[in-house]
Amino acid sequence: MSLSDSFSVLRPLIDEATSEHLSGLLVRAGASTRGEEFTQAVLSAASGGKRFRALMAHVGYCLGAGLALGEVFLPHLSAALELYQASALVHDDIIDRANERRGAPTPHRLLADHHGRRRWMGSPTDFGEHAAILVGDFLFSAATDAADAQALLLDEAAAQSFTRRFADMHAEVALGQYLDIVAEQTPLDPHRDDAVSGADALDVALHKSAHYSVVHPAALGAICASAPPGQVSTLLAILDSVLTPWGLAFQLRDDDLGVFGDPQVTGKPAGDDLREGKRTVLLALTWEASTPSERRELTRVLAVPTASPSEIGAATRIVARNGRDAHEETIARLVADGHAALQRANVGDEARRVLAELCSLLTARRS
Amino acid sequence: MSLSDSFSVLRPLIDEATSEHLSGLLVRAGASTRGEEFTQAVLSAASGGKRFRALMAHVGYCLGAGLALGEVFLPHLSAALELYQASALVHDDIIDRANERRGAPTPHRLLADHHGRRRWMGSPTDFGEHAAILVGDFLFSAATDAADAQALLLDEAAAQSFTRRFADMHAEVALGQYLDIVAEQTPLDPHRDDAVSGADALDVALHKSAHYSVVHPAALGAICASAPPGQVSTLLAILDSVLTPWGLAFQLRDDDLGVFGDPQVTGKPAGDDLREGKRTVLLALTWEASTPSERRELTRVLAVPTASPSEIGAATRIVARNGRDAHEETIARLVADGHAALQRANVGDEARRVLAELCSLLTARRS
Repeated sequence: MSLSDSFSVLRPLIDEATSEHLSGLLVRAGASTRGEEFTQAVLSAASGGKRFRALMAHVGYCLGAGLALGEVFLPHLSAALELYQASALVHDDIIDRANERRGAPTPHRLLADHHGRRRWMGSPTDFGEHAAILVGDFLFSAATDAADAQALLLDEAAAQSFTRRFADMHAEVALGQYLDIVAEQTPLDPHRDDAVSGADALDVALHKSAHYSVVHPAALGAICASAPPGQVSTLLAILDSVLTPWGLAFQLRDDDLGVFGDPQVTGKPAGDDLREGKRTVLLALTWEASTPSERRELTRVLAVPTASPSEIGAATRIVARNGRDAHEETIARLVADGHAALQRANVGDEARRVLAELCSLLTARRS
Repeated sequence: MSLSDSFSVLRPLIDEATSEHLSGLLVRAGASTRGEEFTQAVLSAASGGKRFRALMAHVGYCLGAGLALGEVFLPHLSAALELYQASALVHDDIIDRANERRGAPTPHRLLADHHGRRRWMGSPTDFGEHAAILVGDFLFSAATDAADAQALLLDEAAAQSFTRRFADMHAEVALGQYLDIVAEQTPLDPHRDDAVSGADALDVALHKSAHYSVVHPAALGAICASAPPGQVSTLLAILDSVLTPWGLAFQLRDDDLGVFGDPQVTGKPAGDDLREGKRTVLLALTWEASTPSERRELTRVLAVPTASPSEIGAATRIVARNGRDAHEETIARLVADGHAALQRANVGDEARRVLAELCSLLTARRS
C-alpha cells in the first residue's frame, strides 16, 4: 500500500481517537448544559484537518518497530498531537484574527456570535477572543492528558524521553510563534535590504514547522516503538538529519502555495499570505532582489487587510519575478540535503522507500 | 513548628524550583537574545506570589507520608503547580485587562510597552495581548513538563492517578473560568431577583477555587507520598470531604476582602471586585436582598470601570447592609461542615492539628 493510501486508512481512526479523548476530558471536567457553547467550540476546533502530525507519528513508529504502516494504530499519541495542534490553531486564529478555518467559523467567531445572539453585556468580539483563549487552554489540557496516557504505556526510559520531547515540542512552538509575530511588526523600510530577514524567517520555519510538524511527531512515534535504547537513539538521529531539511522544504512549499496556490485547491483566498504580511523566506528573497519602487508596491499589500485585488496581483507578480525561482532552488537544495542524509543513513530498503515517498508528500503537494 | 512558619521555610525553595525549571525549558526550546523580552515576561510572570498551591501539595504529601511539614521538599510538583498558576494568571490578566499584579506590570502590559518603545508596526495593545497568550502557553508547557518529571518518580498506579488528576485540575480551571466570564456578561435587570445567580457563583467557586487551589494540590501531594493504594484512596476521600467546604470558604473570604479588605493589606484598590463586576456569592446574596432602587445603585458600579469613589462607597454600603452578614454565615457554615467531616475522619492527632490550623489560614486571613 502506498504511503498516501495508508494515510487515508488512518485518518478516520485518528479523528475518532481525538474526539473520544476530548469528550472524556469534558465529562471529567464537569461540562454540562451550562456553557454548552464552550463544549461545542472545543469539539469543533478539534475536528477535521489533515491529521498530518498524527500520521507522521505513525511513520516514526513503524520505522522504529520495523512494521508496515497500517499494522498499528496509536490512539493516545494521535489524540495528543492533534489536540495540541487544535489548541495552537485556536490561539493562532485569535492572533491572526482569522474568522474561518476549513470553511467553518473559528472558535472566537463562534463564541462572539453566541454572545451577540444572547444579547449579553459588553463587546461580542472581546468575549469571543477571551473565551477562545480558554478553548485553546482546554484543548492543551486534553493534549497533555492524552500524551500522559501514551507515556504510561512505555517503560521508564522511553516515558522520560517521550514526555521531554512532547514538552520540547509545544514549548518550541510558543517561542517560534512569538518570534513570528515579532517579525510581522518590523517596519518595512523600502531602502533597507534587510527589512525582511531571510535568516529570521528560516529560524521561525525551523521551530514552527520543520521541528513541530515533522521531526518531533516522527520522533515521538519512534520513541513509542520501544526498540532497544541504542537503536532508538540511532533512529532519532537519522530522522533529525533527514526530516529537518524536508520539514523546512515542507514549510517553504506551503509559503509558495500561500502566494501562488489555486484557491480552489488550497481553500485559502489568493495572495492571503501577502495580505497577512507573513515574513516568509519567499518574501525575504523577493525583498532582497527588489528595487525600492517594487518594495513600495509590496508594502501596499503586506499586512494591509484592505489591499485591492489589483494591488495583490501586482505584488504577486513581483514575487514571481524576483523571489520565486530562488525559492524553488532553496526547496530543491533542502530536498537534496535530506536525500543525501538518507543515503548516508544505515536503514533498510523498506524504510528508505517509505521516507522517499514521504519526501514527495511533504514537498511536492498542491494543497 | 506552626504551619505558617513551615510555609515561610518552604516558600523560597518553591521560588527556586519554579524558576530553575522554567529556565531549563527556555534553554531546551532554543530561547536566545532574539525575543529576550519574551523570556523576561515568562520569568517575571512565574516569580513571586504566595505559592499557595505548592504549599497545599506539601500538606497533602505530609499527611500521606506521615511526616511533619519541613521534612520533605517536592521541587517538581511545586514547579508544576506554580507554573500552571502563572500560566492561568497571564491568560486571566489578558481577559480582565489587568495592567498590574503584585505591583509589577502584567506580561501583556510589559510586551505592549516593549512594542511601543521599539516603534514597531501595528497596535502595541494588540501585540501585547497576542504575545501574552503565547507567554501563558509557554508557562503551561513548562508546568506539564514539571508534572511529568514528578510522575516519572512514581510507580505506575500512582503515576496514572497523578497525571489524570493534574489534567483534571487544569481542564476544570479552563471550564470554570469560561463560566465565570459568561456570568459577568449577563445583563443586570434590577427587577429580576435572580439576575445574579448564587448557585452559579458557588459552582464557579467550586471549580476555580475550592478544587483548583485547595483540593487538587493537596490530593496531588498525597498521591506522591506513595502510601499503599487503599490508604491513598481513603486519604483522598478525607481531603475531598474536609477541604472542599474549606476551599469554598477560602474563596468566599477572598470575595469579602475584595469588597471590604484594607487596600494597604490586600494590595488591591478598595471595591475592586465591584468595579470588575465579579459575580460572587457575596454579590448574589446582596442582590437578592436589595430593592430595585438599591440594585440600580449597584449597577452604577458593577463592571463600570469609570465608577466614582462615591458610587463605589454607596455600593459597598449596600453590600455591607444587605449581603455581608448572610455571607459570613455561609462561610461559618462551610467551616463547620469541614470540621464535621474531619471529626468523622479516621486520622491521627497530628494530622487533625495540621488540618485545623490550615482551616484558619484558609478562612480567617486578612490578605
